[in-house]
Amino acid sequence: MLDPVDWDEFRIEAHHMLDDMIDYVEHIRERPVWQPIPGEVRDLFREALPARPSALASAHETFMRAVLPYATGNVHPGFMGWVHGGGTPVGMLADMLAAGLNANLGGRDQMPIEVEKQVLQWVRQIFGFPDAASGLFVTGTSMANFISLIVARTGRLGAGVRKSGMHERRLTAYASSSAHGSIAQALDLSGMGIDALRVVPVNERFEMDVAALAEAVKKDRQAGHMPFFVAGTAGSVDTGAVDDLDAIADFAKREGLWFHVDGAYGALGMLAPDIAPRLSGIGRADSIAFDFHKWGQVPYDAGFVLVRDGELHRSAFASDAAYLRRESRALAAGSPWPCDFGPDLSRSFRALKTWFTIKVFGTEMIGQAISGTCELARHLRKRIEKTDRLELLAPVSLNIVCFRYKCEDPDRVNAEIVARLQESGIAAPSTTVLDGRLAIRAAIVNHRSNRSDIDAFVDAAIDLGNALTRGEYGN
Amino acid sequence: MLDPVDWDEFRIEAHHMLDDMIDYVEHIRERPVWQPIPGEVRDLFREALPARPSALASAHETFMRAVLPYATGNVHPGFMGWVHGGGTPVGMLADMLAAGLNANLGGRDQMPIEVEKQVLQWVRQIFGFPDAASGLFVTGTSMANFISLIVARTGRLGAGVRKSGMHERRLTAYASSSAHGSIAQALDLSGMGIDALRVVPVNERFEMDVAALAEAVKKDRQAGHMPFFVAGTAGSVDTGAVDDLDAIADFAKREGLWFHVDGAYGALGMLAPDIAPRLSGIGRADSIAFDFHKWGQVPYDAGFVLVRDGELHRSAFASDAAYLRRESRALAAGSPWPCDFGPDLSRSFRALKTWFTIKVFGTEMIGQAISGTCELARHLRKRIEKTDRLELLAPVSLNIVCFRYKCEDPDRVNAEIVARLQESGIAAPSTTVLDGRLAIRAAIVNHRSNRSDIDAFVDAAIDLGNALTRGEYGN
Repeated sequence: MLDPVDWDEFRIEAHHMLDDMIDYVEHIRERPVWQPIPGEVRDLFREALPARPSALASAHETFMRAVLPYATGNVHPGFMGWVHGGGTPVGMLADMLAAGLNANLGGRDQMPIEVEKQVLQWVRQIFGFPDAASGLFVTGTSMANFISLIVARTGRLGAGVRKSGMHERRLTAYASSSAHGSIAQALDLSGMGIDALRVVPVNERFEMDVAALAEAVKKDRQAGHMPFFVAGTAGSVDTGAVDDLDAIADFAKREGLWFHVDGAYGALGMLAPDIAPRLSGIGRADSIAFDFHKWGQVPYDAGFVLVRDGELHRSAFASDAAYLRRESRALAAGSPWPCDFGPDLSRSFRALKTWFTIKVFGTEMIGQAISGTCELARHLRKRIEKTDRLELLAPVSLNIVCFRYKCEDPDRVNAEIVARLQESGIAAPSTTVLDGRLAIRAAIVNHRSNRSDIDAFVDAAIDLGNALTRGEYGN
Repeated sequence: MLDPVDWDEFRIEAHHMLDDMIDYVEHIRERPVWQPIPGEVRDLFREALPARPSALASAHETFMRAVLPYATGNVHPGFMGWVHGGGTPVGMLADMLAAGLNANLGGRDQMPIEVEKQVLQWVRQIFGFPDAASGLFVTGTSMANFISLIVARTGRLGAGVRKSGMHERRLTAYASSSAHGSIAQALDLSGMGIDALRVVPVNERFEMDVAALAEAVKKDRQAGHMPFFVAGTAGSVDTGAVDDLDAIADFAKREGLWFHVDGAYGALGMLAPDIAPRLSGIGRADSIAFDFHKWGQVPYDAGFVLVRDGELHRSAFASDAAYLRRESRALAAGSPWPCDFGPDLSRSFRALKTWFTIKVFGTEMIGQAISGTCELARHLRKRIEKTDRLELLAPVSLNIVCFRYKCEDPDRVNAEIVARLQESGIAAPSTTVLDGRLAIRAAIVNHRSNRSDIDAFVDAAIDLGNALTRGEYGN
């Protein structure tokens, strides 16, 4: 009863919608990266709950007029903020197929789950993991980090912890000061508490100081704690630093710690022959968390968690609810199901857009796109090094460049440069704070970005810095 | 570089894909609900990682041939297993727009977040919650239940628990024996442990026995425990039972407990004037978890969590990471962001398909679809009551009917009936176990289902039961 009364009319409108979205991507360079939202546009979405129906064409028109022009801008090659993938039209179509099929990947014997298993097999291959390794699509790395920690705690304390609770107060975990906040959040949510996380200092390249890790573990053992988990970072969110994963793997093995890798955006660097060696050691992890929606260019969201010990993974999540009864035949066959490996019973078909992306482009082309972003980062670094008024604030490890305009009151001026850049529509970097200094942070993730985008960005940043320090804007 | 080289060619293929999906939904009745997967189809998805590209048309063809025909079947009106929504073509188009826009709803000042806020405002209105209430799209109710528990524990113990961990072992939570397993899972994941959940018995209608709840709380207090959380169920997964939410609300208020409602599929019954009174008391909850992808017919996945005390909600999740620095202007404005209210920083644009669904159909039509499924359940109940060989195993509260074919060895025969029904392609119910008895369980959720689907299902079930007990199948 919620299907179209007139399918032909519906079909015409549907094709309009598709054309509009293809136009959007095809002509993305003609748009500003981002633009401020007018108050009257914002107000369009402050309506009361509609009791009566509206035409699909009218909803579409509202979307085209009031939503699409005021998105974050990460489809645009000038977007360099945070870490956002650019997406592809192929991924969009695959997600349309998924939404039409309306598959729920929680369980049941269905081909969509075979597609997810195919991607899992590819992921095992990427990281050199054994067939016994398990894996699962999740929203993003924050959830993948959390699941990894839950499996690790189950490994250390046994599945009995699921009933008895996390009352072992001696457990301690380790990550560097450059690690993503979702590691601390995982400790929070799991009931271990953020205080159980030891923040290990980083070296001048913002990589974990493994000697300091060893020192911290030793000190904790002496104090009666039970070190059990260390998270290495493959592509830190601030600067793109990659921890020495081999050294951490060696140490974790020696000390009997669970070795987790947060490779949110960096892990897929394995697909680029020039980047993969930087990730050496990642294949020795007990668990890896990463996103296909960053360097993998799959549309949001498509996080993934990979666990070496699939049986342990299952023991941390499986339940025996009557309504999830398994059979050896028909729809309730195919056990184990994805819901046995994670918290979700309702799971959209994230695997399809990922399968299409890998199948249609192949890993070489995705790898080239990844390499390309790192090459652009090196180009940006060179531009900065050649410009007296600019200074780098961190080494350029992969695809992230942190720098600033040199002047008096640099934190205020550089924050202003970033805001004005965003408002200009030319480029959209973000900011971070490194050693107490505000940095203009450009994370080049989009496969559409090219040298002219980088040059336009850095030229505009210099112009803005010059103008602001000359007082042209009344500062 | 991952954009089409030839946009015109790409566009033609894209329109083929769209037509194929519209055809799929338009002609869904011509297909079997579900069919077994041939071995050679399964094997198509056991390839090695592809290094080289493939044509989009070829990936599409593989999808049409090997994935689409072997889905779970929940788009089909004969699907009655577990609790699966049917989706709509409107939702599919909206999800295509979302995937093309590739928005990440973690944060930033962008209209997609205004769309999510619009849906939040509508949700507040549906449940009569104040403007200070917060809410968030998540994958599904399992995650929404977990988030609610995390907020509740933060409310009871203060935000300091995030640092110190869940070492307060006296906390106890309450849910009925009909509650969904994700409540116990939330206690597991949060570190409280499943043992901290008191399973309250149900009455003959499978609703929580509120006197028994009072008794359990009293006993726990006497034993030095700290009762803090009670979950009522609005539409239990086994039978569709709705707890007496007003009675639980009264009790929770008197005892100072957090009152959570798991309304995974039932909560949206608020949109149906004949169902809403059954949910009386839901508007008094401290938190509500539910899914738009069930009775709301939004494509997977689109769960939602609503929390009365938005400030408390934020205090349970917000962090101050440098890379999430907020500004009063430009892209980094618009604080608080959705990532301040939940675990995810990467969040797809679930709000858009939900906004389109509510906007295009309006709440009256969605409510009529919901009422319609309950009417069909009553029709099925009557058919069962009029058939000597069938017996109901639970009262029909909303849209779920549990029954069995009466015979010797009923568990084996009824499991066989369900497997053969699924294999027949006529209908796809699932099973559950009630009071130790295996039930054929029909959850009528799909807006496309009508009386002829119900009749075909029950006729086939009777025929199969007769044939199996006459030994026609060699049983």
